[in-house]
Amino acid sequence: MGRVIAHGRFANNGPFMTDKALNIAVVAPANRLDSRVAERVLALAEQLYPGRVALSFRPQCHLSAGHFAGDDTARTAAFVDVANDPSVDVVWFARGGYGSCRILEAALPRLGAFARTKTYLGYSDMGSLLGALYGRGFHHVVHGPMPADVTRDGGEAAVRRAFAYLVDGAVETLEPAVLSGAKVAAFNIKTLGELIGTPYQPDLTGHVLLLEEVAEYMYSIDRMLFHITSTPGMRKLAGIKLGRCSQIPSNDPDFGKTEAEVAEYWCGRAGIPYLGRADIGHDADNKVVPFGARLIV
Amino acid sequence: MGRVIAHGRFANNGPFMTDKALNIAVVAPANRLDSRVAERVLALAEQLYPGRVALSFRPQCHLSAGHFAGDDTARTAAFVDVANDPSVDVVWFARGGYGSCRILEAALPRLGAFARTKTYLGYSDMGSLLGALYGRGFHHVVHGPMPADVTRDGGEAAVRRAFAYLVDGAVETLEPAVLSGAKVAAFNIKTLGELIGTPYQPDLTGHVLLLEEVAEYMYSIDRMLFHITSTPGMRKLAGIKLGRCSQIPSNDPDFGKTEAEVAEYWCGRAGIPYLGRADIGHDADNKVVPFGARLIV
Repeated sequence: MGRVIAHGRFANNGPFMTDKALNIAVVAPANRLDSRVAERVLALAEQLYPGRVALSFRPQCHLSAGHFAGDDTARTAAFVDVANDPSVDVVWFARGGYGSCRILEAALPRLGAFARTKTYLGYSDMGSLLGALYGRGFHHVVHGPMPADVTRDGGEAAVRRAFAYLVDGAVETLEPAVLSGAKVAAFNIKTLGELIGTPYQPDLTGHVLLLEEVAEYMYSIDRMLFHITSTPGMRKLAGIKLGRCSQIPSNDPDFGKTEAEVAEYWCGRAGIPYLGRADIGHDADNKVVPFGARLIV
Repeated sequence: MGRVIAHGRFANNGPFMTDKALNIAVVAPANRLDSRVAERVLALAEQLYPGRVALSFRPQCHLSAGHFAGDDTARTAAFVDVANDPSVDVVWFARGGYGSCRILEAALPRLGAFARTKTYLGYSDMGSLLGALYGRGFHHVVHGPMPADVTRDGGEAAVRRAFAYLVDGAVETLEPAVLSGAKVAAFNIKTLGELIGTPYQPDLTGHVLLLEEVAEYMYSIDRMLFHITSTPGMRKLAGIKLGRCSQIPSNDPDFGKTEAEVAEYWCGRAGIPYLGRADIGHDADNKVVPFGARLIV
């Protein structure tokens, strides 16, 4: 069982080369997080990694402004603050929902040099931030579990996986494509689609792209894959792996194809190798995908 | 009451300068059309324009292949056939649903010189074709009612409007922005979004863009408008007018903003003039929007 050079702290200092606890700060660029959920995750961190993890939930996580965890200004400020804070090792996104695209234009120009040294972990709607940061050359952008996953069936395993990756760089947390040595990236299909053609679309040339979806009609998945695979930049992918597409509403008339058939179809049309299924999704089994090429030690 | 130079037949020959009936051929690049719906529209044409309209529904409209009116090959062949047929004046799309994006890549290279001389009328999912054709310099691309609209509440008015536009170029069928002299285009929000970044995204520089939506969550409308207004090409629009957004499912938590507030917000962020509401939508009142600048006579 190996370890992976997982984030800035490791890359700079080597794993376990410091006595300082890993400083993980949680913010919520989309929907608000219930404070009881935060308490469960804090207790889990204390139980699993006493003295090794300094986990904090920024008060912004619990703000409420309509749909969002605070208005755009509050969410932008909280994200920029933890990203630029030199004492923070990991920016962990509290949960998905919708809203991270709303803070991109204001937040990105305010990120300084320290922001590039740390790890950013999340998925689903957080793909807007992950994609935009990766596109700007941030090196420690990671698709994986978030604190809110603790409320899922068996969701504690997802949160344990996030900690095992962040604290120990544990190889068993990783989606298998990561270990292949390929450059990888992972996204929710819809979230990636909404970046295409904008200044936030990352260059994924030569990458294996892992995609997952939740609660979208099959015809909508088909159309989104048309969109992604018809984009010239995406035709330079090394391949696509399809994660789980869960809670697909029933289609009338029945769409007549599975999500894997749909993905294989569009890959075939676009000349992108279809590489089978990926172990990611909106569920407790969601594996970790650090963007780019990883060094295994 | 004026008339508008509405399509190739008029542009070539002038309105009412020929005894030949207007040849309107209906195909279905997305979902199938019930033959009883076709019969209702045929009867209406005969009643309203005896001898002046030669309306035909291609058999492909009534094919069924899972979700679609025939498989991609059948739908591509039917569309290419009517588009290239020199005797056809108007290609009228039977209905929306989903599927026209699936035939773009195969169909577009097969369109010949005659395809450029005729009018293409439809909306909703047909925006994939309208956008791609307009982007390739087709001059008579029109957003407006389709045969399937006859089944809506009061939907006969929509079909009458389509005929009044096609046969008489009647000015009262037009969305008011058309009469302003601006270059205009109209799309379903989601359908336009899925073209962005692909080779099918039309250049809408200097256009007033009319947008409408149906059955999408408000957060989804918000995200799609982020997408559209964040695209460099779309920031060159002369303005955006928002049509009706109908059947919006309830959001939990409540989104807290109307669709007009959302549109105005994103226009403001992008520096695109927000020009208020447009008289288009998934309903019987859907007005006609010929793309580009029109000549009123």
